[in-house]
Amino acid sequence: MHPHSYLNQSDAIALDVELFNYFGVEQLMELAGLSCASAIAEGFPESKNVLIVVGPGNNGGDGLVCARHLKMFGYSPEIFYPKRTAKTLYENLTKQCELFEIPFLTACPTTEGLNSKYSLVVDALFGFSFKAPVRKEFTEIIDNMLHMSTPCCSIDIPSGWDVENGPLDQDNSLKPAMLISLSAPKLCARFFHGIHYLGGRFIAPALATKYKLKLPNYPSTHNCVRL
Amino acid sequence: MHPHSYLNQSDAIALDVELFNYFGVEQLMELAGLSCASAIAEGFPESKNVLIVVGPGNNGGDGLVCARHLKMFGYSPEIFYPKRTAKTLYENLTKQCELFEIPFLTACPTTEGLNSKYSLVVDALFGFSFKAPVRKEFTEIIDNMLHMSTPCCSIDIPSGWDVENGPLDQDNSLKPAMLISLSAPKLCARFFHGIHYLGGRFIAPALATKYKLKLPNYPSTHNCVRL
Repeated sequence: MHPHSYLNQSDAIALDVELFNYFGVEQLMELAGLSCASAIAEGFPESKNVLIVVGPGNNGGDGLVCARHLKMFGYSPEIFYPKRTAKTLYENLTKQCELFEIPFLTACPTTEGLNSKYSLVVDALFGFSFKAPVRKEFTEIIDNMLHMSTPCCSIDIPSGWDVENGPLDQDNSLKPAMLISLSAPKLCARFFHGIHYLGGRFIAPALATKYKLKLPNYPSTHNCVRL
Repeated sequence: MHPHSYLNQSDAIALDVELFNYFGVEQLMELAGLSCASAIAEGFPESKNVLIVVGPGNNGGDGLVCARHLKMFGYSPEIFYPKRTAKTLYENLTKQCELFEIPFLTACPTTEGLNSKYSLVVDALFGFSFKAPVRKEFTEIIDNMLHMSTPCCSIDIPSGWDVENGPLDQDNSLKPAMLISLSAPKLCARFFHGIHYLGGRFIAPALATKYKLKLPNYPSTHNCVRL
């Protein structure tokens, strides 16, 4: 266990806005998604049949990048992307996955399908700007994920959790086996007790100081670190 | 030694154009520069005082990204960037280095300065689209690098070399200790006999087939591989 601090939702949003004074979204998303793939390769080295469930915003974009790198790492990812966002960024990330011959599911997988076909499901649905309730396009897949036995790895926030207060409705909340916090853990990570990684290695010391972030040291050239 | 193929200049340019049908330049530059930093950390783990000499185009951009990641890896990089390109991409990459408190030299370092202050000089001047002659803004730094004893690591192409035919004027050509080829080695790498790495892990199998690239397998999640 590395001791570390937590970001509340408004500071997470402010840090994100500030990062975009310096970085392009493609750049940070590439580093974030790459670190997710690296963390999954460490945490689930044998779980090659991975479904990445992709949401409509930046968390989904991280998932699309993660899928592409997992493919390069020898995994067999597939993608369920129920609501495609009509922006060049997401269209390009989708084209990149197609170029790497990653299949996109055309129908929502059932709980049985999630259990039988996949050894890991990556939850890249909602990130740190999420506010309840879940939009209707995503209720079916989340419901099926709630009942699956396949382990789940959430990117940044377990989808549906309150970003600060965690799983408000215990019976209807995802219970991921793994969580990959990006740039810094958000407050809801206090309620998570599984395999916890930090990725998104792009916070300059000046920003860490400004946001009072206490982050662990990444080992040498690694882009993720287990907390 | 991994057996691998070489790209001629026109195919290197065509592959680059094709990549940009799928990827954003920020994305590929981030992966390329990151892999350069990782390769340097493998090849020169003790050479913490690094000068990155940055050219006006994409090779220079790779160098700016590399500098930032080297800083995160615990190196003390400095940057000499004699001709800044007035494009948002390069301005942002520069701001990012400033955010990470990487010093930019205000004058061209002498050969003596290169020898006394740095344990490694990274040549990020010209890439695979280079055609002789070298522009006048860069003749002084290249001349000083020609006479330095500090080892040099070239990104993609040893600057001044013909992209296909290598060091045409042996007495006035850089002799880097290390070369990091990006995406695939270019023909001039046949004339290089030092520490050779491949980085830029983003070539889909479909593109490798189209360009008849025979590339080594990257180990697990590594973003560079020694050739």
